[in-house]
Amino acid sequence: MSALENLRFTIAQINPSVGDLDGNLDRILSVWKDNDQSSDLIIFSEMVLTGYPPEDLLHKSAFIDTCEEKIEYLIEQSLTKSSAILIGAPYRIDNKLYNAALMIDNGKLKSVTAKHHLPNYGVFDEKRYFTPSSETKAAEFRGTKLGIMICEDMWFDNIANDLKKQGAEILISVNGSPFEIGKLTARDLQARARVEETNLPLIYVNQIGGQDDLVFDGTSFVLDANGTKILTCKSFEEDVCPLSSHSERSEESPLKEELLFRATSLGLKDYMRKTGQKKVLIGLSGGVDSALAAAIAVDAIGAENIHAVMMPSEFTSQESLDDAALCAKNLGISYEIVPIKNMVATFIKDQPETTGLAHENLQSRLRGVILMTKSNMTGAMVVTTGNKSEMAMGYATLYGDMCGGYNPLKDMYKTTVYKICDWYNQTHDKKIPQNIITKAPSAELRPDQKDQDSLPPYEILDAILECLIEKDLSVSGTIEKGFDKDTVEKVARHLKIAQYKRNQSAPGPKLTPRAFARERRYPISNGYKG
Amino acid sequence: MSALENLRFTIAQINPSVGDLDGNLDRILSVWKDNDQSSDLIIFSEMVLTGYPPEDLLHKSAFIDTCEEKIEYLIEQSLTKSSAILIGAPYRIDNKLYNAALMIDNGKLKSVTAKHHLPNYGVFDEKRYFTPSSETKAAEFRGTKLGIMICEDMWFDNIANDLKKQGAEILISVNGSPFEIGKLTARDLQARARVEETNLPLIYVNQIGGQDDLVFDGTSFVLDANGTKILTCKSFEEDVCPLSSHSERSEESPLKEELLFRATSLGLKDYMRKTGQKKVLIGLSGGVDSALAAAIAVDAIGAENIHAVMMPSEFTSQESLDDAALCAKNLGISYEIVPIKNMVATFIKDQPETTGLAHENLQSRLRGVILMTKSNMTGAMVVTTGNKSEMAMGYATLYGDMCGGYNPLKDMYKTTVYKICDWYNQTHDKKIPQNIITKAPSAELRPDQKDQDSLPPYEILDAILECLIEKDLSVSGTIEKGFDKDTVEKVARHLKIAQYKRNQSAPGPKLTPRAFARERRYPISNGYKG
Repeated sequence: MSALENLRFTIAQINPSVGDLDGNLDRILSVWKDNDQSSDLIIFSEMVLTGYPPEDLLHKSAFIDTCEEKIEYLIEQSLTKSSAILIGAPYRIDNKLYNAALMIDNGKLKSVTAKHHLPNYGVFDEKRYFTPSSETKAAEFRGTKLGIMICEDMWFDNIANDLKKQGAEILISVNGSPFEIGKLTARDLQARARVEETNLPLIYVNQIGGQDDLVFDGTSFVLDANGTKILTCKSFEEDVCPLSSHSERSEESPLKEELLFRATSLGLKDYMRKTGQKKVLIGLSGGVDSALAAAIAVDAIGAENIHAVMMPSEFTSQESLDDAALCAKNLGISYEIVPIKNMVATFIKDQPETTGLAHENLQSRLRGVILMTKSNMTGAMVVTTGNKSEMAMGYATLYGDMCGGYNPLKDMYKTTVYKICDWYNQTHDKKIPQNIITKAPSAELRPDQKDQDSLPPYEILDAILECLIEKDLSVSGTIEKGFDKDTVEKVARHLKIAQYKRNQSAPGPKLTPRAFARERRYPISNGYKG
Repeated sequence: MSALENLRFTIAQINPSVGDLDGNLDRILSVWKDNDQSSDLIIFSEMVLTGYPPEDLLHKSAFIDTCEEKIEYLIEQSLTKSSAILIGAPYRIDNKLYNAALMIDNGKLKSVTAKHHLPNYGVFDEKRYFTPSSETKAAEFRGTKLGIMICEDMWFDNIANDLKKQGAEILISVNGSPFEIGKLTARDLQARARVEETNLPLIYVNQIGGQDDLVFDGTSFVLDANGTKILTCKSFEEDVCPLSSHSERSEESPLKEELLFRATSLGLKDYMRKTGQKKVLIGLSGGVDSALAAAIAVDAIGAENIHAVMMPSEFTSQESLDDAALCAKNLGISYEIVPIKNMVATFIKDQPETTGLAHENLQSRLRGVILMTKSNMTGAMVVTTGNKSEMAMGYATLYGDMCGGYNPLKDMYKTTVYKICDWYNQTHDKKIPQNIITKAPSAELRPDQKDQDSLPPYEILDAILECLIEKDLSVSGTIEKGFDKDTVEKVARHLKIAQYKRNQSAPGPKLTPRAFARERRYPISNGYKG
């Protein structure tokens, strides 16, 4: 009998809220209660008690004190349970703080496993908070030796190998691993490598849920000792899976576009829920970005909670008015038209010298004032919709269309926006009017304006941005890839200058391997010319 | 003869610009040329070649390549020089990146010292970029053994002791140490401790200059082997000091208020210069915050570069109009009045349901639109003026008075604002009208509004905030200090909720030991109730 069958494991892929120690404790207790009789060990994700990442809450010693009280309470509770739990939590030993996995069974803290490899790159800052573990120990549990690893520890071969040497019969990896394009495959490869090296089965448990600019997809899984995937949990949903019920779980991966849509939707949904908000306001322009953002919002919190406002100016075409109205109708969201004409006219009467870019930004800012005033009156949160291509180029008005609490498109290049719209229309009854997708994009802030008057074609722009951002190439390194020199230099210049705008932008879900903000920490004052 | 006299040392306390490798190289070369004949070794600050902190520029390999080219160029140049230089720079060895101090002499890279203790707390993220050094080596230089330490390495006793054991005759500490209240004393204590432990003299060289939300004060100094300070360089100014010229340097520390004023002024000045901006726009309300911000701007870039705009509403008192006009006159800055009456009336005609807080925010946001439009028309940068007490409480309108490129008061509590105004008036001919300082503060967004209607008295508010922020106490820990329970709970609630506003706020200079943003990384979605 394999170690996977010796014991009844249950994967608890749940959605904790950062800092909500009471709420997370309740959720742990409820899963424990529901699965107590059918389990030997219920496995929760990394830092499930605090939610991941708790950031500088970990610097408040009262916060750690309260975590310890909750752990004590769980230890007490275990006296009344037949199953044990494995939970992630911050844990102090000799005044040092560890990122730990605690096994609680029968009135005892049976084992404490601390994390060795503390990620301090990308979106991670774990060396800011934790001491790395220097000892590896397999944990004895009901006659079986468990090799417990915490997140990053699975991405190196040394920990799994040490655990195997100590007699571990099964590897258990608890994770707070945020979603990004390609991440599911990357995890899979690492997990399979550990299984191949050790010939041990592996249970991978990940957090799900949105947390500010991160989305955790869950997608927990189990590999048997041959590396065969015998269970895959849901993505972007809570999923509590007894290991015995793995019979008919599909292994088909969804399309990339579907993953991105669901990640974005969960990011918005959880941002709303975890900050106590229920309704969304969105400026619908008749363009593709606001249309997709509205579709995402409908998926996240329901059409009845979305209100769209179309704010036409003298430059708004009838086509845009028609497209916006039809889009709102198709999506089933309430819709109103608030022209900005009178406000613009009054402003220009007071300040007649306002022309050019200032006049364009003025329109955008007055729309921002209208949306924010409605937000103040109704309590609804404004969703802002600048895509990654625009955020990179600063092709957005600060305090104008950048107004908003959350930006679902922040890490989505414009070319990706189109791809997701296509996928959405194929799977959602063509709700986004086709004309919105096919017409040439325009900000409609001056007569006959088109995005392509100011920007390179999006296919080229996005390819250049990917070189400069995701691949971190220099200007000359990007030109060597075959792009036009002047275009690359212009894009790089805008990317640099727009840093001050991005620093004041709303959060939005990370989707790419190099999201702005937490993952790309750039100076505003930046004299680098390469 | 002591080691300090064996060799002619020159302290090069200069102001590099982050990323500007060409400019920084030129500055190094010019200091080298000017001091070549009178020096054996010219000592520059930590990472002087890149400016500190270069953040994720360090992840661009082309950036490191260019640094290496500049280092090669300096090595070539050293053939034509009689003196040597010690410069801070990123340096790759075996594909690992180190925070290094390079001694360049007579056509050779004479020594490479890498940093051991990489700070990864507070505003620092060095473990994100660098590998820590594991070897300590005294550097032989023209017959004297130098014990070179990089910044944080001076804050532990082990490095200096190891250097002493290896025969070091003098300690040299190169730094990128940002200013905060109390930091000068803290550095002093550490330096004296190392001198006492080793009986070696110590040369401390620090960067000066503003870099986004950090200000480096310089204040380089020299201790002899007895711990006597024999030289102190200027604070907040470049200063290139041959060690022999130490005769009459004052050791008197300036008042705390003066330090804060100068830090803030340099922060604004360098933000403008390093982002290529020359002129400032400021909304002058007749209140104390905008008055002090205007005074700081005058100090930073000159009265001729500041334009003040008073934007009265129906709630603006004649007193405010008089105070603002007099303040502008005293400071010698241009001043205009742009009433928001017509804009408010037009908005209310279109959206008659706008009342209460929405109406207050509306006024603030229309002012933001006016300032930003003027900014777009003139190229002047808007300075925003919310103090730390307001930023903590969210007592500011997002996209309204929070509009702006830089906020000199961001890390200055309201009670500190008053203290600095008093110091400023004592030293600057009472330029801030006394009535601005003595009257009760008001946002004037509704009839007879006073700050104290919504907030506790500032003395109490600031004391509570200091417990919650600087001391990181819990709500109950703060109440135990003797504050009213309801007040503390209210303040803590606002502090938490306002995180989303702070995340979209302008940068401003760090002054306290716990500045918002880079130094206090908090989740927006935060369920912690303690």
